[in-house]
Amino acid sequence: MLCPSDAVFARVDKDSSNSKSHCFGDPTMYEKYWQKAGDKTTIVIPGWQSLSYFSDVRNLCWFLEPEFAKEVVRLHKVVGNAITENHHIVVGTGSTQLFQAALYALSSQDASEPISVVSAAPYYSSYPSITDCVKSRLYKWAGDAKRFNKDGPYIELVTSPNNPDGSVRQSVVNRSGGILVHDLAYYWPQYTSITYPADHDLMLFTVSKSTGHAGTRIGWALVKDMEVAKKMTKYIELNTIGVSKDSQLRAAKVLKVVSDSCKPSGSEDECFFEFTNHQMSTRWKQLRMAVQKSGLFSVPELPSQFCTFLGRAFEPQPAFAWLKCEQEIEDCESFLKGNKILTRSGKHFGFSPKYVRISMLDRDENYNLFVQRLSKILS
Amino acid sequence: MLCPSDAVFARVDKDSSNSKSHCFGDPTMYEKYWQKAGDKTTIVIPGWQSLSYFSDVRNLCWFLEPEFAKEVVRLHKVVGNAITENHHIVVGTGSTQLFQAALYALSSQDASEPISVVSAAPYYSSYPSITDCVKSRLYKWAGDAKRFNKDGPYIELVTSPNNPDGSVRQSVVNRSGGILVHDLAYYWPQYTSITYPADHDLMLFTVSKSTGHAGTRIGWALVKDMEVAKKMTKYIELNTIGVSKDSQLRAAKVLKVVSDSCKPSGSEDECFFEFTNHQMSTRWKQLRMAVQKSGLFSVPELPSQFCTFLGRAFEPQPAFAWLKCEQEIEDCESFLKGNKILTRSGKHFGFSPKYVRISMLDRDENYNLFVQRLSKILS
Repeated sequence: MLCPSDAVFARVDKDSSNSKSHCFGDPTMYEKYWQKAGDKTTIVIPGWQSLSYFSDVRNLCWFLEPEFAKEVVRLHKVVGNAITENHHIVVGTGSTQLFQAALYALSSQDASEPISVVSAAPYYSSYPSITDCVKSRLYKWAGDAKRFNKDGPYIELVTSPNNPDGSVRQSVVNRSGGILVHDLAYYWPQYTSITYPADHDLMLFTVSKSTGHAGTRIGWALVKDMEVAKKMTKYIELNTIGVSKDSQLRAAKVLKVVSDSCKPSGSEDECFFEFTNHQMSTRWKQLRMAVQKSGLFSVPELPSQFCTFLGRAFEPQPAFAWLKCEQEIEDCESFLKGNKILTRSGKHFGFSPKYVRISMLDRDENYNLFVQRLSKILS
Repeated sequence: MLCPSDAVFARVDKDSSNSKSHCFGDPTMYEKYWQKAGDKTTIVIPGWQSLSYFSDVRNLCWFLEPEFAKEVVRLHKVVGNAITENHHIVVGTGSTQLFQAALYALSSQDASEPISVVSAAPYYSSYPSITDCVKSRLYKWAGDAKRFNKDGPYIELVTSPNNPDGSVRQSVVNRSGGILVHDLAYYWPQYTSITYPADHDLMLFTVSKSTGHAGTRIGWALVKDMEVAKKMTKYIELNTIGVSKDSQLRAAKVLKVVSDSCKPSGSEDECFFEFTNHQMSTRWKQLRMAVQKSGLFSVPELPSQFCTFLGRAFEPQPAFAWLKCEQEIEDCESFLKGNKILTRSGKHFGFSPKYVRISMLDRDENYNLFVQRLSKILS
């Protein structure tokens, strides 16, 4: 989702396609659907509403808006991508805050050394910088899970589908003492086939990648263990004294409209996931054509799977393209920058600089410009 | 603002006045003004708005909504409580997040040991737990600033007016190597006289205590040094990838209505600060009467000062009552709990358990119940 160190960089190179949005995977592609949906997702908040810090004093997560919680449960049931029964919902200021809440909750206050945090490369480039941001004594980044061989407890981040490469993943450090955090930000039918309802101990989701509302900064965690959910709530209490109510109310409305649009009985609107699956499909076809035309690049070939939600099989069409520069190009980011395409080097993802990550969620005009420029690069 | 460890406690004792809100200083008192103001502060957000992570790519703080920044500048000019010229504005998910951003920005990544963070007792009870939340190697809580005598650099938190006791404050560790953070959450004319426009290096404000919109989770920092402002922005980028746009837009509208209501030329509404200053004045009169009647308690006597904004002198009327149990009562919190009044013990504020903090910002019904109960306790 995030590539902090690129933010400044992204700002100076205004001439390039995809300029700022290349880095965060800014999901402005979704504006089209929401413009078509019209007033259905409009919210109105009067000045005297939501003054209190509290949303639901009887809930373990006392700053969770009941309406938002209800729509989270409903949407997962509609899509079939996660089990909410026997899980506590913790709301966060984006899933980034929930990731930190999870690290806090899963590490021990009394441990003699920080718990190792690992993820298989290529991993989301912000995991290391977020984990080590304030040099906690509770946890520390320990790199590629595939190379991790230290004894003792550890936290493994399993991102599936994976950011940056879209692959379906499971844990790789196969030994005891490990605690898994499943980042399922992209486990939605516009990106990948829904093959089973996930039922892990700790799962993270975000509206930024599911509905495109990144500016609202709302994510949620589904957490089996009550003590872990309590500690995550505590972290968010200390970090930001809860989560914007305005944004929770807005997110509730958006999730409701998504669920409504995909009712089996049919709806006046096109099902949100059908529409956006089609958008992604078109974009991936364009990208694969451009890649083939140039002969200089490759993108992952991922197996087609049957999607229980859409009722058909399709190949993954990830939110990011994990592009490899073939032949002698060693620094793919620089090479593409020379061709006015801003990307993020594979080295930030614990991988080779022959790879770059490219956002597939930009507005049409930027995306088309990017594909045009890419297809003009000839070997 | 916050008292995390009380949150559960506050939930169980439903019978007591002031139950949950006693702890955070939940500012529900302000609902009255906003209900009277009607639709003026209503906001409408369509579904396709604010999808992007970015608010203003040309701004150092790239997630700051320009409209919110404009209204912050205007309100400080109207009230005369802070200089915004030559300061950068950084928006945060409440001033709590900005406090952590400041610690991150003001500490050194290469220091051999964590920088000490101090504040004069009685200090805001959440400073220690927020500072030491994830056991950072960059900074650590070092207690009462008045007893601090360690060599080397330090960060001193100057809260003025002070939480919990409402006193006007300046730094107390008077030596070189110190960096000051001014928490001015309560430097508004409903609580204290505005005597000069503050012009410190790093000042924190929040809508929670200025307009009462705690549920929006919006605070702002005014920061002189560009590098510090950049590092604070970086922290918020890593912590939550920015701040809810919905809440920023709502806060912008609220600040605008406040400024409009206090126009020198007069307005159809009563000036927000006149109205709320009057509310606080009434409450403090009631409290002082109850305190006198019982003979068991005392509250601080703070000197009257001329307020440049309201054009008259008045005694401070803080957002919290810092109540002392006189005579033989050693544990004031327990004593009051026995009389169905929930408070927060002075020991959490680095002070004596003969003192407690009581929120003055609750709804009328709760506040009146509290004063009734207090006045019935006879020595």
